Amino acid sequence: MSAFPPPFQRLVQELSKLPSVGEKTATRLALHLLRTDRRNIDLLADALVQLREQIKLCSICLALTDTEPCALCSDPRRDTHAICVVEQPADVMAIERSGQFKGRYHVLHGRLAPLDGIGPDQLRVGELLRRLENDAINEVVVATNPTVEGEATALYLAKLIKPLGPRVTRIAHGLPVGADVEYADSSTIGHALDGRREM
Amino acid sequence: MSAFPPPFQRLVQELSKLPSVGEKTATRLALHLLRTDRRNIDLLADALVQLREQIKLCSICLALTDTEPCALCSDPRRDTHAICVVEQPADVMAIERSGQFKGRYHVLHGRLAPLDGIGPDQLRVGELLRRLENDAINEVVVATNPTVEGEATALYLAKLIKPLGPRVTRIAHGLPVGADVEYADSSTIGHALDGRREM
Repeated sequence: MSAFPPPFQRLVQELSKLPSVGEKTATRLALHLLRTDRRNIDLLADALVQLREQIKLCSICLALTDTEPCALCSDPRRDTHAICVVEQPADVMAIERSGQFKGRYHVLHGRLAPLDGIGPDQLRVGELLRRLENDAINEVVVATNPTVEGEATALYLAKLIKPLGPRVTRIAHGLPVGADVEYADSSTIGHALDGRREM
Repeated sequence: MSAFPPPFQRLVQELSKLPSVGEKTATRLALHLLRTDRRNIDLLADALVQLREQIKLCSICLALTDTEPCALCSDPRRDTHAICVVEQPADVMAIERSGQFKGRYHVLHGRLAPLDGIGPDQLRVGELLRRLENDAINEVVVATNPTVEGEATALYLAKLIKPLGPRVTRIAHGLPVGADVEYADSSTIGHALDGRREM
């Protein structure tokens, strides 16, 4: 006979689909849920259903939202003339936490990765171009990741957007705050020197 | 404004209650759920509800079960004269996987831990004694963990059960299979020498 009862095994199977959760971790999580207040199981199940039902992509910026348009796109205090382009919805949250950008966002939902078969058509570039045509945008801040693929995506976008009029800027590359010059990789140091500014 | 929409934050909050899941991991899991096929969210929510509704403790052995009594207690091929006492439901599964025990189980749901305020009354000892009184039990195999608290629990049970008639045995302590004598702790080596057997 199989050791755990079927409903338990089903949960373990579903939890195992999560990233970096194997069968052992899933079993531990399921046992934990059974050991603690069972109301937590209901709360978790409920939160999942709510997520499924209420979280959509904003029709304007394609970020995660439970309102339409999202809170950022409908906030009248935000600068409507600047768009920050990011790869993933989580990037919007990261930039918002910095509090340094006051414009709106556009989520590409990926980056160019020809080796994985991801070209411009797999990204939400069309929606971005439509926004640039319809709205008066002065600046597009490209905040894709400082990786090979993120850079390629940034260059591609710059080439596409510049003819339409807006300034296209790229977030700075350099040493992260708190880092150690001694241990920084040479490519980062190269970028940091390249982007040096008058003091 | 807070960065993620409220339904998303609620899920992150519930996931963060799981052991070794912090806010960052919870956020990553929630984003993963949104990125992949959303049917997985329903499957997971459903599995949680099923767990909550169907998993109970077996009225006889107190292991996790979705039937009453559990599959092990109702299996006529199992030896009804031997009971293996374990600390947690997961221990039943571990021993079953070994395939070496053919009797029935009893789950204490803990071990004596006076420092944490866990005495005999917090464990399911009463249910065990009632089984010993009502059924013809020849042997009680005490398989609590080989820790200080597990040992104390084993000694306590032995003292309690022996007067009632059954043999009380303890699972062997020694070097685990695949271990290295050089790196084994001295207490384990002590137990291994102590429990040596004729070859």
